[in-house]
Amino acid sequence: MAERTKYILDEADLPTQWYNVVPDLPEPPPPPLHPGTREPIGPADLAPLFPQALIAQEVTTERYVDIPEEVREVYRLWRPSPLYRARRLEKALGTPARIYYKYEGVSPVGSHKPNTAVPQAFYNAAEGVSRLTTETGAGQWGSALAFACAQYGLECEVWQVRASYDQKPYRKLMMETFGATVHPSPSALTESGRKILADDPESTGSLGIAISEAVEQAAADPNARYALGSVLNHVLMHQTVIGEEALKQFELAGDTPDLLVGCTGGGSNFGGLAFPFLREKLAGRMNPVIRAVEPAACPTLTRGTYAYDFGDTAGLTPLLKMHTLGHGFIPDPIHAGGLRYHGMSPLISHIHELGLIEALAVGQQECFAAGVRFARAEGIIPAPEPTHALAACIQEALRCKETGEEKVILTALCGHAHLDLPAYGAYLSGEMVDNELSDDVLAESLAALP
Amino acid sequence: MAERTKYILDEADLPTQWYNVVPDLPEPPPPPLHPGTREPIGPADLAPLFPQALIAQEVTTERYVDIPEEVREVYRLWRPSPLYRARRLEKALGTPARIYYKYEGVSPVGSHKPNTAVPQAFYNAAEGVSRLTTETGAGQWGSALAFACAQYGLECEVWQVRASYDQKPYRKLMMETFGATVHPSPSALTESGRKILADDPESTGSLGIAISEAVEQAAADPNARYALGSVLNHVLMHQTVIGEEALKQFELAGDTPDLLVGCTGGGSNFGGLAFPFLREKLAGRMNPVIRAVEPAACPTLTRGTYAYDFGDTAGLTPLLKMHTLGHGFIPDPIHAGGLRYHGMSPLISHIHELGLIEALAVGQQECFAAGVRFARAEGIIPAPEPTHALAACIQEALRCKETGEEKVILTALCGHAHLDLPAYGAYLSGEMVDNELSDDVLAESLAALP
Repeated sequence: MAERTKYILDEADLPTQWYNVVPDLPEPPPPPLHPGTREPIGPADLAPLFPQALIAQEVTTERYVDIPEEVREVYRLWRPSPLYRARRLEKALGTPARIYYKYEGVSPVGSHKPNTAVPQAFYNAAEGVSRLTTETGAGQWGSALAFACAQYGLECEVWQVRASYDQKPYRKLMMETFGATVHPSPSALTESGRKILADDPESTGSLGIAISEAVEQAAADPNARYALGSVLNHVLMHQTVIGEEALKQFELAGDTPDLLVGCTGGGSNFGGLAFPFLREKLAGRMNPVIRAVEPAACPTLTRGTYAYDFGDTAGLTPLLKMHTLGHGFIPDPIHAGGLRYHGMSPLISHIHELGLIEALAVGQQECFAAGVRFARAEGIIPAPEPTHALAACIQEALRCKETGEEKVILTALCGHAHLDLPAYGAYLSGEMVDNELSDDVLAESLAALP
Repeated sequence: MAERTKYILDEADLPTQWYNVVPDLPEPPPPPLHPGTREPIGPADLAPLFPQALIAQEVTTERYVDIPEEVREVYRLWRPSPLYRARRLEKALGTPARIYYKYEGVSPVGSHKPNTAVPQAFYNAAEGVSRLTTETGAGQWGSALAFACAQYGLECEVWQVRASYDQKPYRKLMMETFGATVHPSPSALTESGRKILADDPESTGSLGIAISEAVEQAAADPNARYALGSVLNHVLMHQTVIGEEALKQFELAGDTPDLLVGCTGGGSNFGGLAFPFLREKLAGRMNPVIRAVEPAACPTLTRGTYAYDFGDTAGLTPLLKMHTLGHGFIPDPIHAGGLRYHGMSPLISHIHELGLIEALAVGQQECFAAGVRFARAEGIIPAPEPTHALAACIQEALRCKETGEEKVILTALCGHAHLDLPAYGAYLSGEMVDNELSDDVLAESLAALP
């Protein structure tokens, strides 16, 4: 019998529940605050933006939440996703480490984002909402929500940062193929957009502006709600299907991870893989090191401050206690667009404060070197975001080569790079740079914390 | 237990042999002829271009050829591929038909092409070849060969039609990420290229020119060989892993297809799915109708002539007995680049002449309408090529809706459209046209048959 490359679960093994890590933590995370009163916000504050079911999930203290059958039916289009043993990469590196990767690029849009887009669309449709609005940068989240809305007959309206809208037309075309309407942001359709355009008709936009436009539209239409692709508790909870499946797949493999590595932007991919393993660790059933990897250009966990800050640039959201570089921080235009967020999920931040996970920052050239190495060995060209995790993975595998340690490493390969190939072009042609984030720039940004 | 969406095979069920349909046919296909002597060509004629193992496979009369373990090891990176039951599409169409699709877009490059690129690279490497050359149009084949060469440490050099090289940079970037060198064709690197450039320095190239360049380079370098991605017997044989897996998956589903539909360009995807089912049909174990679907703009089987013709535009190849529109035929620039070939695999052509398969031509607007419908129901955005099969599939499913017939339809979804999204953009914005191929143009092209 040949050595296995993939560990595949049957559809019958698709998780029936999402896992909520909060009740298993030694203490609960600090609550979001109303920016005016600085009092904890309540469900009523969120009702104009989110359906009741998701607000309830955001604050639930239950350890498990049932996945509706209507959601599982759509998940089955690509889930369970495969767990791979990276035998060809191990061989190429000459490492005694055993490297596994959980691959989420098998989803219709090529990333882990539909794991939460689908339930978000479902709950909105179930409560009679007919239209969802959202923002998107490079477009991973927007295309996931467009796909999800097509499944439940919802209208989907996406404000895409103008620079990406113009430079990366493939993601927009994907959203439109799924039936979504895509606007470049800033747009003349909203108060927020018109204000920006009046000041600067040539504005190329920002994620902060796009959030303002999507939120404004949702709040103004009683039939519409807003959807967010990362950061919040319910979003991370939906992603735990990744880790739950991986646990079952490790049973199939007869192995146990010593180290988990995942990239962190808003935290949803990382939390999705890590939380079920963290549960096992807290229960004493295994003891993996859990390592978050972030870009050196946007080092929230490694150089940010743990403080209350706004989730958006314009300061419209509740205050979130999180690792932040300051809500006005504009990261270098690195290619991992999904990791260019000034803050970090409050839940991941809290868990980091508790000392349950560690963090590492890596420059993008090392990341793309790891991506190319991985692609040539394993065939899959990783999206720019998970190359951060792969770089950390390769660092560890090469350490094992020196020490002879047969460490078991698990990484989250959250998507492929089909729509990000120009980033590889920049790397291969030597045009990619690593700009050091200066202490001065960071200090200035942090001085503006609310 | 919920209804199944996917039928997944274990790695242990990966086929161990390719199937050669030739010995099961009532009569063998006519041999290729030397263009000078008009005598059947022999192995020596092919030796400068192909390794011995592939030449032997091209003419073998064995029904089965073992798949080397080194090839199966790479196949396992994505194979066995899933067979899907299109439940959401069936529901959207309101049809009593049961629609299944075998999905090859799970391969590293997103199409079925690596099924033959991998063994071709393997056999070349095993015979000491260090460099492979090939041509590519839109780039599906070039990227498959680039991936395959990376697996066995071969250099890969691709001549890509200049128009595609300039307009579709993502495929080139994919090839380069896998380590291949990509030249726009015509290039100044070859006699053939320089000749074209001398006449027309602005030439945007053609597949015929690119073939001449790749063949010329391979023939001139004793360490190099040439690789072809469709048309030839050994290429179609490598693709039969698709149909062999699908047969096992139908057993799992407890169902039997009444109709197979696949798109045909050179014939490799169609043959790969259809040949194992044709074996079952010839043996009387099932009786599916087998239907090839081609573009109305390049209707080889439905409007071409069955005659000896050149495989390339320039007339450098052996003469092949096939359905052809004439080797000088230039199809409309439709978006299904993989189906823009003036001829058809001699084996598929022969089987069509024997009355074992039927053929249908569809215009591209109907195809993209089917593609959008499929994407919104099933999540996968199909490549332009398999939208032809999906259009035929939907035609049949809607007929079943009228008659109430619970027909079982199987189609080959040979790839996704991540790198072809601008074609969907053209369709959605109403810019796509269907130009009728006029009888006069066709007659003129056929008059030039050798």
